[in-house]
Amino acid sequence: MFFKVKTTEEVLELVQGFQPVGEEIVRLDKAFGRVLNREIISPEDLPGFPRTSVDGYAIKAKDSFGATESLPALLEIVGEVGMGQIPSATVSAGQAVKISTGGMVPTGADGVVMVEYCHLLDQTTVEVSRAISPQENVIQADDDFKKGAPVLRKGWRLRSQDVGVLAGLGVTKVTAYRKPRVAIISTGDEVIPVDQKPRPGQVRDINSYTLSAFCAEHGAEPVPLGLCRDNFDQLRDALLKGLETADTVWISGGSSVGTRDLTLKVFESIEGTELLVHGISISPGKPTIIAKIGATAVFGLPGHTASAMVVAEVFLSPFLARLGGEITAGERAQHKVSATLSRNIESASGRDDFIRVRLIQKDGQWIAEPIFGKSGLISTLVEADGLLRIDRNTEGLYQGQEVEVMRFKQV
Amino acid sequence: MFFKVKTTEEVLELVQGFQPVGEEIVRLDKAFGRVLNREIISPEDLPGFPRTSVDGYAIKAKDSFGATESLPALLEIVGEVGMGQIPSATVSAGQAVKISTGGMVPTGADGVVMVEYCHLLDQTTVEVSRAISPQENVIQADDDFKKGAPVLRKGWRLRSQDVGVLAGLGVTKVTAYRKPRVAIISTGDEVIPVDQKPRPGQVRDINSYTLSAFCAEHGAEPVPLGLCRDNFDQLRDALLKGLETADTVWISGGSSVGTRDLTLKVFESIEGTELLVHGISISPGKPTIIAKIGATAVFGLPGHTASAMVVAEVFLSPFLARLGGEITAGERAQHKVSATLSRNIESASGRDDFIRVRLIQKDGQWIAEPIFGKSGLISTLVEADGLLRIDRNTEGLYQGQEVEVMRFKQV
Repeated sequence: MFFKVKTTEEVLELVQGFQPVGEEIVRLDKAFGRVLNREIISPEDLPGFPRTSVDGYAIKAKDSFGATESLPALLEIVGEVGMGQIPSATVSAGQAVKISTGGMVPTGADGVVMVEYCHLLDQTTVEVSRAISPQENVIQADDDFKKGAPVLRKGWRLRSQDVGVLAGLGVTKVTAYRKPRVAIISTGDEVIPVDQKPRPGQVRDINSYTLSAFCAEHGAEPVPLGLCRDNFDQLRDALLKGLETADTVWISGGSSVGTRDLTLKVFESIEGTELLVHGISISPGKPTIIAKIGATAVFGLPGHTASAMVVAEVFLSPFLARLGGEITAGERAQHKVSATLSRNIESASGRDDFIRVRLIQKDGQWIAEPIFGKSGLISTLVEADGLLRIDRNTEGLYQGQEVEVMRFKQV
Repeated sequence: MFFKVKTTEEVLELVQGFQPVGEEIVRLDKAFGRVLNREIISPEDLPGFPRTSVDGYAIKAKDSFGATESLPALLEIVGEVGMGQIPSATVSAGQAVKISTGGMVPTGADGVVMVEYCHLLDQTTVEVSRAISPQENVIQADDDFKKGAPVLRKGWRLRSQDVGVLAGLGVTKVTAYRKPRVAIISTGDEVIPVDQKPRPGQVRDINSYTLSAFCAEHGAEPVPLGLCRDNFDQLRDALLKGLETADTVWISGGSSVGTRDLTLKVFESIEGTELLVHGISISPGKPTIIAKIGATAVFGLPGHTASAMVVAEVFLSPFLARLGGEITAGERAQHKVSATLSRNIESASGRDDFIRVRLIQKDGQWIAEPIFGKSGLISTLVEADGLLRIDRNTEGLYQGQEVEVMRFKQV
């Protein structure tokens, strides 16, 4: 058999080879956090009319030139703009119209002087004590967006302000990528449901929970298919069910050679399966299997929760971004934090080591403090804020060195 | 009237004066992202039995002392541990039991030698070519958690690995803070529903959408109460409805003096209202009103979306964390990013300026690039990745200076 142990980079490139899921129409009030499947082009000018950003008087800027506190300009008040109204008055030389923030600047005016610099002499006369430049405090009809201008890119995940912009443009529905559906299967004769009391030798099904939460965290929809014994037929049935109902299937378990071999055998029993990865040169997480069945990526993840979570952080996070059509995941790089390493770390060469670290803020800088512990402990994951990668060509990292930490996604 | 314009710090302290919402029971598979209302104490030892973290042979470590490739130790194989099973064999001096990762270490053995260092001579004899220390590759019964030990703190927001730990401990339900309910009201005679076409002078109701999405982003439940004209009775009714149904009420609008005064008048019309803040010395966002009605915080936010979003980022984010019982929001400090400023920024003293910035990664460092634009534009919010605070005692910041950027929450 071809030697399928791959490097981190090879696997990262490989998961980008799968195709994004399809699309669906989403109402704007449900669109937060969704990924756009089409570029949004502005359907109109925004705000669509000349608008003032202050309370004050709309005037011809020229009329204020040279105005000071000691030598104010005197202007005649010829009206007031009601909020949401088209101004009835127009402004000629020597005239002013009262206006509130957000109001439409009347014809003839080319600037708004703030109320702070205006002094009412009587009902129809205002003293302006400061000069304004033309267009001062005026937002032009197309200052925010011009009709036909690009607003948001295809593949962009909508934040709250992005939803706001779409509301402003009257976009009440968007075409978004579906949320990728992830079938999750836990295997292992030693694994029991979480509500049962383990006998010695047994463990509760942690991975269904961590992987489901991980999916939710990354905008995907988990479809937990439950527990599976180390039994060929049972695991094969579960996999087939997963392939039918989801966009990708994740089987966790297989920390022991037996389960690992079983998972591999089940993958290979299905026609058209292409084995892409059989082992990754990382620690923890080496015994990871990736295959392509039809167009679907199926993953055999380590059974150890800590190892499975490292594989999820490093590979499944960009994989889900790819599946969900998100182009901005890497670009925004929200995960990366620069930090100073608190102590030396040795590392075996020939593989990438992923070390759990705590992030501590000190004098405005981040300190990365490695968390050591026996492999297979879950408690260290709770203490950790992120992962530090030690490249396979590096023999270790030094105390005081600047490192980049892949921060766990914050909820 | 007492002068109620407050500084950023005063307002931040003030919002911490409100009490968290009540509790509810949440099933573990729905608990991701929720905030614990009680400390979690380990109900049992985890893993609960001595467990191996490798595939290999369980032995007495002493039997391997001095073993090398040229001088291996010869041990008698007396059995095999099945996954999830209590070992039937025990290990005496000179004996070995085959075991897989996750298996229970049999009585008598105090270490596991990895299969890589074992060579089968015949069915009952194994050659061990490397010495192990006592307890090597063994996870003790209480290595992960000891019964009675603290696991997760009250006020902790559950990440995927935290959910996993609870699953491992058999915690199938948690007591969590309810999600804070936020009533959202948009006011202004110029504001129309998003599905309508604005006439000149009118704008669509952006704030209901941005603030609702902001709530979802911060683990709260938005209750949009819709649009309200600049009408005392209508606004008062909406506020009363909000007070009845939600844990806090946010009224946006009031960029113009008229609406602002109306909001204030409505607040004051309700018995027992205590006006806490009437203006904050920040820009943008100055015309913000905060009152306490009974035990409920009500906010009058600026109508300009950009200003309202700055107030939300700076004040409503910690306020929601407080309301939702989250103690870890500030501690995790996920929002803060150190960056180098790309150009000089001037700033008026006497107020805190919040400047929208773009974050660009360059040679592993973040560059903060200020986004300038007329006040009141929404498009600049879409371009921005976060906010930069210029303290009121500072006259500006210099190009090349290290600054801290409050990053917008990433979805």
